[in-house]
Amino acid sequence: MARPILHYFGIYGRGEVIRVLFIHHKADFEDHLVSFEEWPALKTSGFAEFGQLPMVEIDGLKLVQTKAILHYLGEKFGYIPRDPVLRYKMESTLYLLEDFINGMISLFSGKDMEALTKYYADNAARYLGYFNARLTENHDGEGWYVGEALTLTDLIMFEWLWDFFFRAGREQFAHYVEAFPKLKAHFDRVLASSPELAAHHASRPVWPF
Amino acid sequence: MARPILHYFGIYGRGEVIRVLFIHHKADFEDHLVSFEEWPALKTSGFAEFGQLPMVEIDGLKLVQTKAILHYLGEKFGYIPRDPVLRYKMESTLYLLEDFINGMISLFSGKDMEALTKYYADNAARYLGYFNARLTENHDGEGWYVGEALTLTDLIMFEWLWDFFFRAGREQFAHYVEAFPKLKAHFDRVLASSPELAAHHASRPVWPF
Repeated sequence: MARPILHYFGIYGRGEVIRVLFIHHKADFEDHLVSFEEWPALKTSGFAEFGQLPMVEIDGLKLVQTKAILHYLGEKFGYIPRDPVLRYKMESTLYLLEDFINGMISLFSGKDMEALTKYYADNAARYLGYFNARLTENHDGEGWYVGEALTLTDLIMFEWLWDFFFRAGREQFAHYVEAFPKLKAHFDRVLASSPELAAHHASRPVWPF
Repeated sequence: MARPILHYFGIYGRGEVIRVLFIHHKADFEDHLVSFEEWPALKTSGFAEFGQLPMVEIDGLKLVQTKAILHYLGEKFGYIPRDPVLRYKMESTLYLLEDFINGMISLFSGKDMEALTKYYADNAARYLGYFNARLTENHDGEGWYVGEALTLTDLIMFEWLWDFFFRAGREQFAHYVEAFPKLKAHFDRVLASSPELAAHHASRPVWPF
């Protein structure tokens, strides 16, 4: 079978969680970094349906739309629970996260640090509280988000905490997470679940976002 | 089994597509309209997880997050294809639609008609073109979005076309859809697929959005 390819920019953004999923699954894949210089021509060429990245080539398909990609790969790699209630919990967690991200999409560049800081002050504790409640309702927060095994939700929450609260340029917001020790312990548990992910995490390139 | 309840405001918004799904499936449900006056107290009371509506009570669960609700109900009612590729197509269509909606979320009130008109001019034809291409790749656009039967995607696209292009207050944008006759024919096909939906459609209350 052909090696899957992730086409995305050299940023974390929408694509990094797809990298995390491939790596956690020990799947061999090509991480094709598209430059911002070549993108305008590629965008209008029909290279990626809807003119958007990330795009993933796998199984003879060219998948677009991050959440649809994650669900397809998650299903294929065994990261999605079969039980409809657990799947509901997985999806609703992801979509709540999307609300947080959509609310700050104009602030991603970090150029308006005052507006970004206000957004976190207004929203971070509330969202983290919802996630903490979700985590805690399963095995009192000592295990995974849903069910008995690590699922896509765990990887997505791991990636979100890192990208929005822990990484360089966001570490000033880490204290919001530290108020929820079970969220931080869950982050560490995901990291400890995969030597491959830990190795990737320890050597991520430094990107602005 | 207890009758399912949809808790939502007396608007189309996020909740109307859930009404459409219940009605198309001929499911008996209570359409509980929450007033804007009672919502602030309800929001902070823990009534709906994440402090958001719509919320659906069914199977002893209190479901939140529209897309997660739609997938749960869609699965239960038989509107979601089992095949992973068809499910991918369903989801990616839905998420593309979300991009269009998220881009205009500050314009929903319709108070800034100039900005709304510009948003449509900048985006409507491109998005509709993507949806038209998706529809056309299955049976040359003469059937349903994916596979051989009506799925959640068909209901969602029906609802979106109506709410954003056809209903009172948006009919000035109908010409964008009329440039794609197969999209309009598909809209009519969904309507014709269910006398219950047609009856609901013919008697929808007049709401501002």
